[in-house]
Amino acid sequence: MQSRNSQDKNVQEKDGVGIIQSKHKLKVFSLGGLQEIGKNMTGFEYDNEIIVIDCGVAFPSDQMLGIDLVIPDFTYLEKNREKFKALFVTHGHEDHIGSIPYLLKEFNVPVYGTRLTLGLLENKLREHHLIGKVNLICVEAGETTISGNFSVEYIRVTHSIADCVAMSIKTPAGTVVHSGDFKIDHTPIEGGTMDLNRFAQLGIEGVDLFLCESTNIEQPGFTMSERSLSSVFERIFEESESQRIMVATFSSNIHRIQQIINCAQKHSRKVVIIGRSMENAVRTANDLGYLNIPKDIIIEPSAIRNYTDDKLVIITTGSQGEPMAALSRMAQADHRQVEIKPNDKIIISSSPIPGNEKTIGRVINELMKRGADVIYEGLMDVHVSGHAKQEEIKILHSLVRPKFLMPIHGEFRHLIAHRELAIEMGMKKEDIFVMNIGDVLEISNGTAVRAGTVPAGQILIDGLGIGDVGNIVLRDRKHLSQDGLVIVVLIMERGSGHVVAGPDIISRGFVYVRESENLIDEAREKVSISLESCMENQVSDWGIIKSTIRDVLKEYLWQRTKRSPMILPIIMEI
Amino acid sequence: MQSRNSQDKNVQEKDGVGIIQSKHKLKVFSLGGLQEIGKNMTGFEYDNEIIVIDCGVAFPSDQMLGIDLVIPDFTYLEKNREKFKALFVTHGHEDHIGSIPYLLKEFNVPVYGTRLTLGLLENKLREHHLIGKVNLICVEAGETTISGNFSVEYIRVTHSIADCVAMSIKTPAGTVVHSGDFKIDHTPIEGGTMDLNRFAQLGIEGVDLFLCESTNIEQPGFTMSERSLSSVFERIFEESESQRIMVATFSSNIHRIQQIINCAQKHSRKVVIIGRSMENAVRTANDLGYLNIPKDIIIEPSAIRNYTDDKLVIITTGSQGEPMAALSRMAQADHRQVEIKPNDKIIISSSPIPGNEKTIGRVINELMKRGADVIYEGLMDVHVSGHAKQEEIKILHSLVRPKFLMPIHGEFRHLIAHRELAIEMGMKKEDIFVMNIGDVLEISNGTAVRAGTVPAGQILIDGLGIGDVGNIVLRDRKHLSQDGLVIVVLIMERGSGHVVAGPDIISRGFVYVRESENLIDEAREKVSISLESCMENQVSDWGIIKSTIRDVLKEYLWQRTKRSPMILPIIMEI
Repeated sequence: MQSRNSQDKNVQEKDGVGIIQSKHKLKVFSLGGLQEIGKNMTGFEYDNEIIVIDCGVAFPSDQMLGIDLVIPDFTYLEKNREKFKALFVTHGHEDHIGSIPYLLKEFNVPVYGTRLTLGLLENKLREHHLIGKVNLICVEAGETTISGNFSVEYIRVTHSIADCVAMSIKTPAGTVVHSGDFKIDHTPIEGGTMDLNRFAQLGIEGVDLFLCESTNIEQPGFTMSERSLSSVFERIFEESESQRIMVATFSSNIHRIQQIINCAQKHSRKVVIIGRSMENAVRTANDLGYLNIPKDIIIEPSAIRNYTDDKLVIITTGSQGEPMAALSRMAQADHRQVEIKPNDKIIISSSPIPGNEKTIGRVINELMKRGADVIYEGLMDVHVSGHAKQEEIKILHSLVRPKFLMPIHGEFRHLIAHRELAIEMGMKKEDIFVMNIGDVLEISNGTAVRAGTVPAGQILIDGLGIGDVGNIVLRDRKHLSQDGLVIVVLIMERGSGHVVAGPDIISRGFVYVRESENLIDEAREKVSISLESCMENQVSDWGIIKSTIRDVLKEYLWQRTKRSPMILPIIMEI
Repeated sequence: MQSRNSQDKNVQEKDGVGIIQSKHKLKVFSLGGLQEIGKNMTGFEYDNEIIVIDCGVAFPSDQMLGIDLVIPDFTYLEKNREKFKALFVTHGHEDHIGSIPYLLKEFNVPVYGTRLTLGLLENKLREHHLIGKVNLICVEAGETTISGNFSVEYIRVTHSIADCVAMSIKTPAGTVVHSGDFKIDHTPIEGGTMDLNRFAQLGIEGVDLFLCESTNIEQPGFTMSERSLSSVFERIFEESESQRIMVATFSSNIHRIQQIINCAQKHSRKVVIIGRSMENAVRTANDLGYLNIPKDIIIEPSAIRNYTDDKLVIITTGSQGEPMAALSRMAQADHRQVEIKPNDKIIISSSPIPGNEKTIGRVINELMKRGADVIYEGLMDVHVSGHAKQEEIKILHSLVRPKFLMPIHGEFRHLIAHRELAIEMGMKKEDIFVMNIGDVLEISNGTAVRAGTVPAGQILIDGLGIGDVGNIVLRDRKHLSQDGLVIVVLIMERGSGHVVAGPDIISRGFVYVRESENLIDEAREKVSISLESCMENQVSDWGIIKSTIRDVLKEYLWQRTKRSPMILPIIMEI
């Protein structure tokens, strides 16, 4: 009976959205992302037009040695350059805007975003010398823009940054709703609540495909409102009357910063902003009217000395334990402007991003060793997430009532958990598409089918190099990092092939040479013997000589040390 | 009033324990540990005798590139070789026994431990060819052994491994209680409950110093009993009737393994044990009677093919995502005996140890991509901790009623949190000693004072090398791992100093050379020019020539790539 019921419902929905019949198809695919599928860049293709939502950076995994950033692979856009019409941005977080400069260096497309999003983007474009060269189009929640066959509507959502939107993308082949990042905050600090009514209306009009975020899908219940922290901060300020207060948080969390400024104002404390990204974010948000900063409350770091501890609040970056950020430097007593002292009350107002637990733990330990009082998530609720938990996701599902679901913004296990949740709510498993990066879903006439793949993935950025570090280079770095390097260098006489100097052995990152002279001497002896035997056997091919050296040395060093350094034979000829 | 009360109490306690007056002092100090202070090795020194409790390994931090293990620094024991009398072991976990082979290679002292602890230790000693050469003394909870001036009593505690003890150490200078690792499990799977009465009695007799573990100090409430998992496993087995069930857990968690075997027995499934450490632990525990394994229930991995999915349970290592462990290999389709398939139900029955979150997440994603159903802590309570939470720690505090407290087994922030908890319970801040590794606390006549430090810390093990990898080697490995290596090699004529061959440039882990030929060519040109200028200026000192090459190349490569590879100039002479 139950299955019949849900079948009937599906037929009705099909009738509802199937009004616009079309032979054309809408393709939806994720172009970037590290483990988190659909996070950084999603493409939509209809006939001869491609639009893209978001273009963020990922941060390198611990396997990507020396890599600074990971950006999406633009190959598919390059191959379809004339089709690519526009970029749409949901909000101003790094994982949604961070790769835009790299994209705009290659493609001259307009960028649609809200005021704060574009303001933060401009900071990035300035660093890449792109300001004035690109077409930024400012939109507002509630508005709809037309771009060829795509009609894109911006819908207000709440999140851990202001001016955040979801999007509804209408094409003749069907309607897609993209949730962006969201939580349902009924009492946001500023900027209005999530436009649940519009999601409901879209649900009534009929939505073919729902792309919905999955960050907190494993967590039951609701995410607390940002405002719930105000009483927490208030209590801490009251209890810390004579202490210097410092708060570390994400620079983009404008509302968190506003709440701290409010507390500071109430307790007659001055505010110091520390950290480049924090300064930029506060300046931009203030200029655009997203922050309400009382006159004269902000002072320069150099003015700290003019105030007693009870008259100061320091707001700083580094809440993830990033080694170069202000808080880590303070913990290492390596910050020019702020020295940690026992009268400091430090609030780490964030959750560790998975993978950062140990680093942030180390920073907390160091701060405590300097005598500071540190409050962090393990001890008190000094942070709320910006992402919807299960009950909020269910609400959006039941409003949007999509025919098909593509969970996005999550690792594979999160997407699977999202599918489970949708199945529990009555969706059929075959209507839910758990995709990989590059997988294409094709929408038309109320159907959705998987339709191959497009080139997509990760491009590694190291310094100025884009994509010039690949697997071989990373494998070498990994090898070098594990047991270091042993170089064997020798000079051969042209013609005779006699060794006229060397072999000399040089090592780095292997062992203390001073304590291992004997080891290196014996290694040199082994190489010499193997070279003599090459001579005797009339071996003159450098390739063979090098691999002989490598084999002999590898075997010897493994025997003696159980280590496998990279072995690099260098033969010079004169 | 309150402070007077607690003062009175202190005086009473002082009278209680001060019966044995002594001019001698008892020194207590931690010798090892990574971030976790007092975790791996604690020393007790009275007059001419030193005893040690535990001698565990730590696992390298992500900064310790290529390092296999971290053991405690034995320097202080080496300097006081004739004083060092005995080692006492609380339980058989790696972080308590893992460094014992390294210790016993240097010191011929007796080792006191319970039967299972010594059984697991013997596995280690066998690998190090130490079996038969060392004196292992088997003790039981409830027993007391005398070792010179030290009287050591073993007190049964519950934990995530069987046969676990706390210790009371009595000397003429005072009594110390060392909690070891514990949780208060009133319904353990096997082996009796924690001997709370004995802790109470010791409290009545008078305890000068309490060394108490702090692992879960940040968590409110009680840790659930191991037995609470039995209904969870039972439910999963019922719901997975037709599936192949696999459970990944810690190999030392004998009680967890027992529960899974019980479920398997009830549901007529055979059990396969996968992973070397799991096989060793199960064999040892079974031989010593700590596991109750029904006859014929365990089958060899090679026999898997003889059974249908619904007749199998696989118990495996790798619950922390360790890359070389069985579960990770299965996830990578790289395991000889087990291939993951969509009909697998995989239970990850452990919590990520801080720092392992990402790795274990990656393994879960891969298992799911192969279609398996994976249950992990984020989704269901399939693990309980082995460590006491706040309420359990409070109970032990109130039974032991120590005069002084030294929180151990935790990072600095945990020790501080433990101090806060003790203060809340009425202890005075000055009676609580948050120590660093090597700090000495001196106990005598009912007083405790800080008394300098002893040499202590970490020794890095890489392959066969003990302590031959230090900061310089690690710094080089770090440098190599970030931007790789550029070697410049050239041959100079003896006497004239003319360059007769080269400079040649070789790189590894830097950039794809094929795509960067131009870069390397230009770099060679820059070096040649700088060499010519050296010649013109009559510079013949190799040190100066090398640093010139290094500077020129560093500057050029940074300009062109914003990277700083290690630059290694090699000059050969003929």
